Amino acid sequence: MSFYENLKFDVNGLIPAIVQEQQTGRVLMMAWMNRASLEKTIESGKTHFWSRSRQKFWMKGETSGHTQTVKDIAFDCDGDTLLIQVDQIGTACHEGYKSCFFRSVGSDGDEVKTTEPQLVSPGDVYGKS
Amino acid sequence: MSFYENLKFDVNGLIPAIVQEQQTGRVLMMAWMNRASLEKTIESGKTHFWSRSRQKFWMKGETSGHTQTVKDIAFDCDGDTLLIQVDQIGTACHEGYKSCFFRSVGSDGDEVKTTEPQLVSPGDVYGKS
Repeated sequence: MSFYENLKFDVNGLIPAIVQEQQTGRVLMMAWMNRASLEKTIESGKTHFWSRSRQKFWMKGETSGHTQTVKDIAFDCDGDTLLIQVDQIGTACHEGYKSCFFRSVGSDGDEVKTTEPQLVSPGDVYGKS
Repeated sequence: MSFYENLKFDVNGLIPAIVQEQQTGRVLMMAWMNRASLEKTIESGKTHFWSRSRQKFWMKGETSGHTQTVKDIAFDCDGDTLLIQVDQIGTACHEGYKSCFFRSVGSDGDEVKTTEPQLVSPGDVYGKS
């Protein structure tokens, strides 16, 4: 069975893509792809997504320069989630952190703690993709 | 702002949860949580999810014994995805692989390759959660 035949896009034609930094294992972000953005990702070797809020096709780093070079694309047993290994230039998060997952819940199950340093001023990347 | 106030559940009251093995950095699976399963996960220290296909609350490993002990719960900048670090007992995948992401697309963008060994006979875990 070919790659695309294994995949299940949802009712909106989308599939979630987890992006992991290959070198460190750090999970950087999760975003959504439609078939066109996945095809473009494979063809170009740079991650492309579909923004649900903006209803727009976008390349990661197209305005910030913080692009992701694809090293591997895996999919799960149900065929409904992608796991993409990348080399990340700069920060993945538009708030200036390496990873979008820079906050954790404390052991009390309520308080929030920031778990990694802010590498770039948000003004330099905010609103950029 | 408290933990739950940072989170955005979707129109079905669900949020995707990426599960990563803390010790190795291996991404094991992605599943969905509603607020009740997240609260139960925090309270019990074992991952609990909401099955969209079965419309059912479930604990990972409740029938297979392959439970996940929670070490950390992070959330992303948009508050719409969780990243949970765990200690995994046995295999995360019901097909007998350590990770559900055991297949990748080849460099031709079409052929599929299996990238990790099958550790358990699927008969031992298939249909179990």
